[in-house]
Formats: sequence, structure tokens, C-alpha cells
Amino acid sequence: MSSAIDFARQHQSRFLEELKALLRIPSVSTDPAHKADVRHAAEVLAAELKRIGLENVRLIETDTPAHPGGHPLVYADHLHAPGKPTALLYGHYDVQPPDPLDEWLSPAFEPTERNGNLYARGAVDDKGQMYMHVKALESLLVANNGQLPLNVRVLLEGEEEVGGEGIATYVASKPADLAADFALVSDTEMFAPGLPTLCVGLRGMIYTEIEVRGAKTDLHSGMYGGAAPNPFVALAQIIARLKDESGRILIPGLYDKIIPPSPEELAAWQSLPFDEEHYRLTEVGSSTLVGEPGYSVLEHTWARPTLDVHGIMGGFTGVGAKTVIPAKATAKVSIRLVPAMTPTETFAQLSSYVQSILPPGVEAQVRLIHSGDPCLIPVDNPYVRAATAALHEVWAKETVFIRSGGSIPIVGDFARNLNLPSVMMGFGLPDDNLHAPNEKFLISNFYLGIESIIRFLELVGA
Amino acid sequence: MSSAIDFARQHQSRFLEELKALLRIPSVSTDPAHKADVRHAAEVLAAELKRIGLENVRLIETDTPAHPGGHPLVYADHLHAPGKPTALLYGHYDVQPPDPLDEWLSPAFEPTERNGNLYARGAVDDKGQMYMHVKALESLLVANNGQLPLNVRVLLEGEEEVGGEGIATYVASKPADLAADFALVSDTEMFAPGLPTLCVGLRGMIYTEIEVRGAKTDLHSGMYGGAAPNPFVALAQIIARLKDESGRILIPGLYDKIIPPSPEELAAWQSLPFDEEHYRLTEVGSSTLVGEPGYSVLEHTWARPTLDVHGIMGGFTGVGAKTVIPAKATAKVSIRLVPAMTPTETFAQLSSYVQSILPPGVEAQVRLIHSGDPCLIPVDNPYVRAATAALHEVWAKETVFIRSGGSIPIVGDFARNLNLPSVMMGFGLPDDNLHAPNEKFLISNFYLGIESIIRFLELVGA
Repeated sequence: MSSAIDFARQHQSRFLEELKALLRIPSVSTDPAHKADVRHAAEVLAAELKRIGLENVRLIETDTPAHPGGHPLVYADHLHAPGKPTALLYGHYDVQPPDPLDEWLSPAFEPTERNGNLYARGAVDDKGQMYMHVKALESLLVANNGQLPLNVRVLLEGEEEVGGEGIATYVASKPADLAADFALVSDTEMFAPGLPTLCVGLRGMIYTEIEVRGAKTDLHSGMYGGAAPNPFVALAQIIARLKDESGRILIPGLYDKIIPPSPEELAAWQSLPFDEEHYRLTEVGSSTLVGEPGYSVLEHTWARPTLDVHGIMGGFTGVGAKTVIPAKATAKVSIRLVPAMTPTETFAQLSSYVQSILPPGVEAQVRLIHSGDPCLIPVDNPYVRAATAALHEVWAKETVFIRSGGSIPIVGDFARNLNLPSVMMGFGLPDDNLHAPNEKFLISNFYLGIESIIRFLELVGA
Repeated sequence: MSSAIDFARQHQSRFLEELKALLRIPSVSTDPAHKADVRHAAEVLAAELKRIGLENVRLIETDTPAHPGGHPLVYADHLHAPGKPTALLYGHYDVQPPDPLDEWLSPAFEPTERNGNLYARGAVDDKGQMYMHVKALESLLVANNGQLPLNVRVLLEGEEEVGGEGIATYVASKPADLAADFALVSDTEMFAPGLPTLCVGLRGMIYTEIEVRGAKTDLHSGMYGGAAPNPFVALAQIIARLKDESGRILIPGLYDKIIPPSPEELAAWQSLPFDEEHYRLTEVGSSTLVGEPGYSVLEHTWARPTLDVHGIMGGFTGVGAKTVIPAKATAKVSIRLVPAMTPTETFAQLSSYVQSILPPGVEAQVRLIHSGDPCLIPVDNPYVRAATAALHEVWAKETVFIRSGGSIPIVGDFARNLNLPSVMMGFGLPDDNLHAPNEKFLISNFYLGIESIIRFLELVGA
């Protein structure tokens, strides 16, 4: 056992108390009333990084169109291991709003231990996971007389829950300041309790608006119903031709570029402890699951593109009845992408297909709101191998490689701007209530996560 | 020429000035700030009805769930023509809000003459048309030494623009107090300038909400997209199966009970001065008109059922992107009915059809918000014949019989509760800007309307 792990085990209760202090700061990034709290959390972290021995510790101000005068980044480094790889450790210190408050069994910003869990907003997303990095670094520095087995840069953000534009802008504009060999991101989950997990794939996305216009102005449905085009009906007809009732997307060419998972990856997914019926009942709660015929739920959500409608704007949505034929209707439509689909090509396919299926009497405009590339981390690089070995030592189990159906945009930014592979080693659990009341983090996962990261960094630097 | 018409011609300017005074009262029924103004308009009308010699003049208070402590009805009668028919003269003294104010060329509540028109909110809808009745009665009473050629009841409402529940409740509860032989309703339009017009048909309606539920709670489209049902997509698929792209409604049985217009009525419509291309360009403004193949625009809007979607509620409709799969989505859907469709049967057909076409994984509830019967006035009754003759005398042209695609619920209430046919004799014009800025009434139509009503009442009582 490494002396760093020894140190970490001896200081578990102090580490936990420090995390609790951090969780008491209500760093809700979306709420202007908490702006000072968000900065306070950044300052506390900067002070702690300095105390444990990191250098060049500073706050980096952000200022983007989405968030002018935004929340700061926290940067620190320790670059005294010549010839060794450089790790970029990423996490975020902002949290989701705690609403609805009355569903919390203990106050959202008063961390409370129950049944081996620590309950608080941000416990697992991402203060608890981010703080594992800090405490792993402290343990390594103390155990190695102020040295680290590799070079380290730390970059923490305070706007992850509001879009992350500040860090994206910084990463794109200062690649030299972040030169590294790989990134470590602990903002994901284990597939099941006790099952060490690396996330090696993320879906990309295009998020669009499809606006359909009929008459030049709103019309009365009594006077004009039957003669004037109805943009809501036309939009429904368009959407119904984007995806059939079996879940298959009907946009020509959309499936052409997909690289399916390897037979080995599929076989590994089939051996995961996953019960579709349990998932349907406890997580989705619908009468049946949907999705393209011939694929499992994990393939549907990890390895297949999907199309969703998030809302439809326009017309009358108040209480009661208003007999209007609206001049326009606009749907928010997203498509999740898998390798090797690209946002550019998918958007072009969607746009031209919509124009080709327009019902009579309407015009349509398809607008791109934002997009992100899908990503797939090669599992045969030394960092993934080191992570796998470290997890095996600490958890005494084989690591499972999973994907996520969602996106972590910073992983794409690291790949695109810094040419870094990301090791997504997370210790959350599927029932941790992210973004919901009673968010929690299993305390033993906090401790074992610190040990896993210590061993990972030691093995990379060995 | 009758002496009543002689009187009306001699007092045209006074009648117009009185109407202007009435139009200066901002009796906007939907705006609580104007509650006293609405009552003031009722009191002015009651005083005028009393001054010209009507009896039993009173305000009848209304109080409905939709409008507790609502705006009053104005009632008056003159029942001194034994053996003669009794007319129920209906009109409304409330008006639409004047917004958007900055598009008015002269103030909405400062009646202004321009190019032979009187511009003001309520000029034609319905103060100007309702006041024609009052001035016709005054002319008849003066010319006949305080007598009328028939019995008359006057019933004016102040909630027409907010649903008319007060008068509907009163009509249903006090039929004996309103005993009459026919109703005269002047709240419709002439088909074209100078073309005397009787409206003899109105479409009915069911206004519904179709709520579709998928997952038990909102889900993240990254994590669950591809496995969880999307209620917006399902709703679009349902709507696309309610009506095809040609405009034909696909609900089984919906067209079965329709009584088509007679060949004579269709031939009359074909001879109306109506240019579909002009209508498309100036009124609708869409690239093409829609509607069931094989029918004209007038048939589409007057004699065929139509289905419209007015808005879709739920999900995310803010600026930007939120990747939610909402738990539910709800569409406001109405169907316009024509004789002899009934709201009850049509709603049952819609409901059972929706349940029969549900996409996988979702449930649906179809709710009825409100409904109204279609109505068709027989044209071979003595009141329509008298109206036709009166119009011919005054306008020196043959009357055209049209329908309206909209609904006038009071006409159905009169038919259902009082067993009265309504003579819908209106003098508005298609470009009068009802419910819009720069509402107007052609002043010569105000004068000729008074004369038409005088002659109509004289002929009925002859």
C-alpha cells in the first residue's frame, strides 16, 4: 500500500468535514442572489490548493455573452516531474438550485450523514467528486515530501450547471496554458454499487428549432378554419415524419455514418447488471419502453442516435379556449449523435429533409441552437490502462467500460482544443439524485474514490 | 315611404352623435379596470330605452362561475300589439380591448369620421349595430304615436366579448320572461359593400385538450433519449393521424351525419362576388390555401367540419436549450361542426379514435373544454321573408344568404331554450377591423341599417 493511501485513510474524517464545509456554501451558479457564494466557494478552493502545496494558484475571471461577468475558474499547477506525463484535473464547484426545497429530508446546504451517505446539494455533482482530486493531491504531496509522481494542472469551473461557456472560451483561447497529456474528469457514475466504472463514450447533439409559418397573421379559426393552413398541424405532420412510432428516425442518410460498437463492447454491455423491466418501472415509469426494434436499452441510449421534441412554442396555451389559428409554431427538436456522426452533416440532413416534406401552405425554418460532437475514448491508451489497474487494486473487481447517452461538453473541448483524451472516472451511483432533492454521495465511495485517484496518478507517473 | 323612415332620415345627425357618445364609454368587458365603464354604458342604454318609450326597463345582474359579479344585462319591452308577433332584439354593448393602441390612426374611444366611416372601438361590434335597433324603435314609436307595429323585447348584454355566460344562464333560467316569436341579431356582416345579406348558418364547435403522458416524471434526453417515450413526438404522431396533408379529417364517422348544402344554396354561393386568390393574398397571406379537395373556400369555411390545433402546452419553451423529455404534453384541439353533426357524438368519435391510435408507451386523455351546436336557420319562415323584403326595399338588391364559419352562441341559446329562429341581419363590412385597431362602421350602413330594421319590423307586424 502506498504511503499516500495510508495518509488518506488516516485523514478520512478531516477530509469529510472539509467537504461538508464546502457543501455549506450555496454556490448556485444560475441564481444571481448567490453570486457572492459562488465566488466564495472558488476562493475557499484556491486557498486549499495553495495550502496543500500547489503553485500558480489563481482565479481566472470569465466573461461570455451568455454570462457577462461570470463565475471564475480556479487554476493551480505543480509541474516538477520532468519527463513524466501531465494530468489536467477537471471538476466544477457550482451546484444546481436546491428546489423543490420542501422535498429535502435534511436541508440542502446543511450536509447530513444518513445510512452511510452524505446528503447535500453538490454532494456528488460535483463538489464531492471534485474534492476527491484535491484530497488525492494532498495525500500524494504529503507522502512524497512535497513532490508528485507526475505533473498536474487543476482547472475548476463555476458555470458547469449554466452551460460552461466560460471554461470553453478559456480552453479555446489559452491551449498553451493548459498543455497536458490527459484529463481526469470525475463527474460520472459507476454503473452499479461496487462496480468500478470508466465512461468511454458520450453522445453528441444538435439542438434545433423548427419554425413553421402559415398565414401572415393570427386568424380566427371560425372564419378561416378549413382554408388557412394551421402551422401546429403542419408541424405535427413534419414531426410525425421525422420519427416513426417504432422509434426509428426517418431522416435520409442519418444512420449512414454510424460506427457500431464492437462485438466485444456489445458483449461487455450484455454482461452488465442491467434489468430493463426494473429500469422501466423505477426510472421511466411508462407503460412500455420505446426505441428502434432490434436494439437493447443500453444500445438505444448509448450507441444509437435519438430524436426528441422538448416543447412547442406559439399559439394559445392559457386556461380555457381561444379559437386562434396562429401564424406560426416552433418546436424545440434535438438529435443525439453517436460516432462518427457530425453535427454539421446531421443538421444539414435534418434541414433539407424538413424542407422536402413541408405540408401545403406553410414555410419552415430550421435553426441550430447549439451542438456538440459525440466522443469515444480509445481504451488502449496508457491512461485508461493505468486507471483500470488502479481501480482493480482499490475495488478488487474488473472495471466495466460504459458510455453515457448525455454529453459532457468539456470532454469535447479538451479533445478538440487541447488534443487530450479524458479519463472519465466517476464514483456517483445511479440513485444519487443529481439535480433533484436529496442529492447524496456514498461516503465510502468518497474515500475509495480518493484512493483510486491516488493509485491512478501514481501508476501514470510510475 | 313609412313615416318612421322619414323620421329616421330627418334625425340622422343626432343618431350619429348619440352613437359617438356611447362609443366614448370604454366598456371593455375583459378589463377589471373598466368595470364601472361597462356599467355606465348599460345605464346610458337603459335611460335611452326608457326615454324613447319602452317599458319595464331594468338592469339584470349576472353572476356566473366564469364571471362572478359580472356585467349586467339591459332589458326593456313594449308589449302592446295584441295578436302581433313578438320580436326579441339582441345586441351587446361591451367591446374588445383597444390594443395595440399605437396602431390606431385616431383614438379608439374618440369616435372620428374619415372617408364616410366612423372609427372607434365598438363602432360596428356591436354598439353601432345594436344602436340601430334602438333608433329604429324610436323612429317607429314617434311615427306611430307611441305604438309599435309588433311586440318587442330588447335584451342587451355586456359580456359577449368574454364568453357570454351571463346571458346564457339568464336565457336558460327565465324562458317565460323572454317569450317571443323570433330574434333579431345584428352582429354579422354583409358579404360585400351594398349587398344586403342574411346569415342563415353558423358552425358549431368542440374545443378539447388532448393530454399525452409518457414517463412518470421529466427525464434527461441524454440519459433516456431513445428508451423513454416522448409525449410531444407521440402527440405529433396523433395529430398527424387526425388530419391529413390535404386537409381531410381522418376520424372515422366524422363526416357521416353531414347534411350538405342544397344545390340551390351552393349555386347561390357560386354567384357571390368572391375571389379566392384575392382572399388568399389579402386575408390569409399564405403560399396556398388548404382544405379538403373538391370544395370551394366558402364550402370549407361554412359547410365543412374543420380541425385546428391552437397551441401545445408543456415542456421547455424558453430561450435556448433544455434537454428535457417532458412527462406530458397537451394540445388544444378544436373541431368545427356543421349540420347535423352534434358535439356529443363528435367528441366521442375523437376520443375513441385517439385511444385507438396511441403510439407505444404513452397514455392519452381527451377533455372537452366547451362546445356549441351548429345551426341552420330555415329560410322559408315569415321572419326571413319579411327581412328579405325589407332589405330589397331599402337596398334595391336581392338579398344573399350566407353562412358563417364561426359561432354566435346566443343564437343557439335562443333556439334551444326559447325555440326562436334568429334573423341575423348585419351591416358590417369584411374590412371593418373587428377586434383589431381602426375598427370602423360605414356611416351610410348605420343609416340604411336603421331603415332596414324599421321596414323589417313594420312588415312583420303588417
